[in-house]
Amino acid sequence: MSLYDITNTICALSTAPGTGAIAVIRLSGHEAYSICSKLFQASSPVFSWTDALPYSIHHGFAICDEQVIDEVLISLFKAPHSYTGEDVIEISCHGSEFIQQQILDVLIQTGCRLAKPGEFTLRAFLNGKFDLSQAEAVGDLISSSSQSAHDLALAQMRGGFSKKIRELRQKLVDFTSLIELELDFSEEEVKFASRSGLIRLLDELKTELTTLVQSFSVGNVIKKGIPVAIIGKPNVGKSTLLNTLLNEEKAIVSEIPGTTRDAIEDTIVLEGFSFRFIDTAGLRASEDQIESMGIDRTWTKIEEASVILYLFDATRDSYKDVVDALAEFGNILEDPKKRLILIGNKMDLLAELPQGFQKFVEHETIFVSAKRKENIHMISESLRHTVKEHDISDGAIVSNTRHLEALQRALEAIKNVDEGLRSGIPADLTTIDLRQALHHLGEITGEITTDEILDNIFGRFCIGK
Amino acid sequence: MSLYDITNTICALSTAPGTGAIAVIRLSGHEAYSICSKLFQASSPVFSWTDALPYSIHHGFAICDEQVIDEVLISLFKAPHSYTGEDVIEISCHGSEFIQQQILDVLIQTGCRLAKPGEFTLRAFLNGKFDLSQAEAVGDLISSSSQSAHDLALAQMRGGFSKKIRELRQKLVDFTSLIELELDFSEEEVKFASRSGLIRLLDELKTELTTLVQSFSVGNVIKKGIPVAIIGKPNVGKSTLLNTLLNEEKAIVSEIPGTTRDAIEDTIVLEGFSFRFIDTAGLRASEDQIESMGIDRTWTKIEEASVILYLFDATRDSYKDVVDALAEFGNILEDPKKRLILIGNKMDLLAELPQGFQKFVEHETIFVSAKRKENIHMISESLRHTVKEHDISDGAIVSNTRHLEALQRALEAIKNVDEGLRSGIPADLTTIDLRQALHHLGEITGEITTDEILDNIFGRFCIGK
Repeated sequence: MSLYDITNTICALSTAPGTGAIAVIRLSGHEAYSICSKLFQASSPVFSWTDALPYSIHHGFAICDEQVIDEVLISLFKAPHSYTGEDVIEISCHGSEFIQQQILDVLIQTGCRLAKPGEFTLRAFLNGKFDLSQAEAVGDLISSSSQSAHDLALAQMRGGFSKKIRELRQKLVDFTSLIELELDFSEEEVKFASRSGLIRLLDELKTELTTLVQSFSVGNVIKKGIPVAIIGKPNVGKSTLLNTLLNEEKAIVSEIPGTTRDAIEDTIVLEGFSFRFIDTAGLRASEDQIESMGIDRTWTKIEEASVILYLFDATRDSYKDVVDALAEFGNILEDPKKRLILIGNKMDLLAELPQGFQKFVEHETIFVSAKRKENIHMISESLRHTVKEHDISDGAIVSNTRHLEALQRALEAIKNVDEGLRSGIPADLTTIDLRQALHHLGEITGEITTDEILDNIFGRFCIGK
Repeated sequence: MSLYDITNTICALSTAPGTGAIAVIRLSGHEAYSICSKLFQASSPVFSWTDALPYSIHHGFAICDEQVIDEVLISLFKAPHSYTGEDVIEISCHGSEFIQQQILDVLIQTGCRLAKPGEFTLRAFLNGKFDLSQAEAVGDLISSSSQSAHDLALAQMRGGFSKKIRELRQKLVDFTSLIELELDFSEEEVKFASRSGLIRLLDELKTELTTLVQSFSVGNVIKKGIPVAIIGKPNVGKSTLLNTLLNEEKAIVSEIPGTTRDAIEDTIVLEGFSFRFIDTAGLRASEDQIESMGIDRTWTKIEEASVILYLFDATRDSYKDVVDALAEFGNILEDPKKRLILIGNKMDLLAELPQGFQKFVEHETIFVSAKRKENIHMISESLRHTVKEHDISDGAIVSNTRHLEALQRALEAIKNVDEGLRSGIPADLTTIDLRQALHHLGEITGEITTDEILDNIFGRFCIGK
């Protein structure tokens, strides 16, 4: 029984697992009506399975062996006008887990198969309800937890990204036709396609593909949150700052240096963007083996972070101490993609703010008291600036690693074509690369798929979607 | 804003909290349509709020400030033909928590109020969709996790129990009419109602009320599970037996006597009945203060249990040891409502089963190996016998403490009437008690309610129901 066997009728709980007021169980497949007719007994004496209209709701009882399982409502959808493109019935029952299980049991006994993860959406894709990148966006939409991630997934689900890819692919198809036309007539030495025109088209394609590839750095942080590392010497108050930022006690706070060993992650949403905070072990030479492992991991976290909050103890560390400490990070902090914000903690213990920090012209310095929650809003505001320029409204932002790889491969192939044309190699040698580029763009929208790709994509969905 | 303000339109997430493929948000109230019209934009250009049929489903978009929040389906219900008896709309959206929150936010901004726990069901009750005991059964149905608890709640929800109460109440009304008729004509000394006929009717009522009151012992264990205490000396393998019965590692197992200090509870379902297992601290004199507290609690648990599994070490304890040990429990084990099963553990370490235990004629003795999972099914089978005789099909079983109290009070009042009639006191003095009995029966079905009763009942529901 393969994932791609769409001859079965499938069923699954489609609402969140657990107990709720109601739960919805969904059936899809050509036997949905006949299987459901064995379970459902309508309250209305005039109800008829053949005459019931699509998009209609009916009250009745879910029955097994003449015993009532529950009072239910069923919603009817008919192929092809349903989520999957098949006949679909949604059973809305009382939300006890016992009832959910009973109804699923009866459906399975009477001929349904329990849906595999993402199988409803897979069928929607296979039935042409939407393309592959739109199907992937359904999964992203369900798991999105910030405004920007939601907007990006929704734009992709509604086809913004697919349209962009299809446009690129169409340009490439047109280009290939021109090249092949040239090829057909090459013996007659007629040059239909002007080489300079072709090269201009290729430049356009390269630029657009490069923009898309580069948009991944934005798309990925939108989807996964902007990684922010909090670093600094032991006992400067990193965990307290994290707790204050998260407004809850996620990290174990103690006065013993070296308390935090694992990198603790948590997320806050500011202005619709997720920031993924990474608390790290204090940076110091340590003989404690576990702590040393923590310190090693801190270096990795610093490399991954887009924003680094360097925390120091304003009661103890002078401008020179901070300069020296930053020097130890070497080139890492020089990365132009990273933003460094200096934070002087424990300002509540100072009569006046320490001098000299205005000399950091390229980095902002903020004085706070993590413990007394003073000036914390200044950190939030500074973080907001990191993302304010992103515009994600048209959905032409890559947020999916699979799409990124396909685009990178397509770009590679286009570059080969470009080099070939410029160096004057015969047109028939460039068509192999052109077909490669077309293939990779087709993989994104699913015009070209393999079982492995589908398995990979839909296997990550939840059951019921 | 009182709980009973039904002029507002209310909304809430009705499916289980968390992320699912889809989620359902429900609106109810006279403004449901006008509020939803601000959020929902139909895909069909011919959609019209006024012409849309009840029980119909419509595809479209949830919109806020011209931004799409999600692609949704709405299901329409019109008063009085809905769950609450009011205009109801169910919005089926993608199941991300972010989307759920966004849609609820928009509904609240445009005039809805977030529903209080149980408020949909409260409105259904206030609008006469069902009586109070049926409304309570909705809550029980959602939280039921065994076949018997489910069947009991469903029978009650479908009105089996209400019917019984209404029948009793009608008999009582008839009786009261006869008495009052007698009262009206008392000056003419006409005795319409034959005293012996009245007493026969009262006997009937007493019997039926007593049966209902007594059914609570069954109803309560069906709802909450049958409490089974596992007791025995330290280190005989109680936690191992519990783990084996539960088929998972819930208790900390160690070879150090006194490991289990807290009474650990968990539930298994056998033949549709829940058994609530209580693992207890081993019974022994202990100087460890925390362990002593555990032992005290064990005594309480034994008193609460319906079934007691007394576990002994079959490699160590003789028949006489067990007799002596049981003697220490004094009268507790003599309670005829308790069932005692003796279990000799560690049979895997014995060449042959120990002798003498057949002398326990009134108690079953089962030899098992908890560690090797041998003969455990014999315990399960024995437990099944405990409940096999219960018939819950007609729903005339009391499972609700509120109902029990009302029935007890009604019974008390009926007994007073009975005594009064038998001792020949004037009829007008009995009517006070009759009215009391009617009042208490009316409380069950909600013909008589107070805000306090409603608060108590619906406050325990989840939001969204």
